[in-house]
Amino acid sequence: MVNYPNGKKFKDQTSFNNTSNRGMELERDINTTNQYYLDTKKANIHKKPTPVTIVHVDYPARTAAKITEAYFKVPSTTDYNGVYRGKAIDFEAKECNSKTSFPLQSIHPHQISHLSDVIYHGAIAFVIFRFTQYGETYYVEAKKVVDFYNAMTRKSIPYAWFKENGIIIPYNYVKPVDFLKVIDELYFNKEDAIRG
Amino acid sequence: MVNYPNGKKFKDQTSFNNTSNRGMELERDINTTNQYYLDTKKANIHKKPTPVTIVHVDYPARTAAKITEAYFKVPSTTDYNGVYRGKAIDFEAKECNSKTSFPLQSIHPHQISHLSDVIYHGAIAFVIFRFTQYGETYYVEAKKVVDFYNAMTRKSIPYAWFKENGIIIPYNYVKPVDFLKVIDELYFNKEDAIRG
Repeated sequence: MVNYPNGKKFKDQTSFNNTSNRGMELERDINTTNQYYLDTKKANIHKKPTPVTIVHVDYPARTAAKITEAYFKVPSTTDYNGVYRGKAIDFEAKECNSKTSFPLQSIHPHQISHLSDVIYHGAIAFVIFRFTQYGETYYVEAKKVVDFYNAMTRKSIPYAWFKENGIIIPYNYVKPVDFLKVIDELYFNKEDAIRG
Repeated sequence: MVNYPNGKKFKDQTSFNNTSNRGMELERDINTTNQYYLDTKKANIHKKPTPVTIVHVDYPARTAAKITEAYFKVPSTTDYNGVYRGKAIDFEAKECNSKTSFPLQSIHPHQISHLSDVIYHGAIAFVIFRFTQYGETYYVEAKKVVDFYNAMTRKSIPYAWFKENGIIIPYNYVKPVDFLKVIDELYFNKEDAIRG
């Protein structure tokens, strides 16, 4: 197999011509949701570009610079971040095809350290998990994922754990992964209630 | 000339073998500073990867996936973001070789819209300008840059404007661009004073 992080082949249907969309639905749904948040002035959250090490670039006259040799880098952070109500938002998203458990190796150790660090600095940090077989998308607070990972008693997180520790993210045609609704309930409505 | 955004050739001494470092000192200094902030648990701020559109990837057996055709994309956001004391941090950095003014065309319209939007959402947003001829590095609140840009009475920002509207960022060997010191004074000490 290839050496792309986690042994996965690169897929990015927005910029890369491939026939398979497996594993991309969640990314596409999150991008749609973020665009909706952006357009409606609800939040400013973006997917970070795929990190690559550029080795060689050609500069043909009058045409676009062409990268002719580059390699995928292991990401040192999560894929998504931005701002909502002044707070830093930071999250990772993972799709899971198994019906029984999520394999922990799908989350890179750097990403766990990163999540742990942004929690320390006060970001709203979480992981979005989609169980494709059930059509369920869960919001899990990053702290719970980090704690499970660090305990390392198992190599995978059982599906039942998500039912207990996750919150189902509502689906909506214009906001297929409406995670801000969960954040509002976890962080802001509570605050409003205390204030009010 | 090539079509890389702003007509500049790509330079990234961390991943790309080139002989010239012109225009890279500020980026390197900011990366050093961010690494220091990260190591000392002061903040979690990263440079985003350079956005590229990947067209073709080779997957030779047993070796790393090799990108053989890709192009630079115009960035839709700023280069740096992260979290500090729970607040979202978002900024762009620009080096200027002129002694008299900074050319506005060096900032992409998408980046101005992005800064304007993250201000709306409550991020701490700013632009770091370095006048290489004077060895001066300024912190300028994004709102001031956006306002100047939108007024569009001039095609460049005069050097004197920075003296009046910017704040000199202190230099320190381990924190070459200690922008959090400025942020502390602008946002947090003030708050502490009000609270105390």
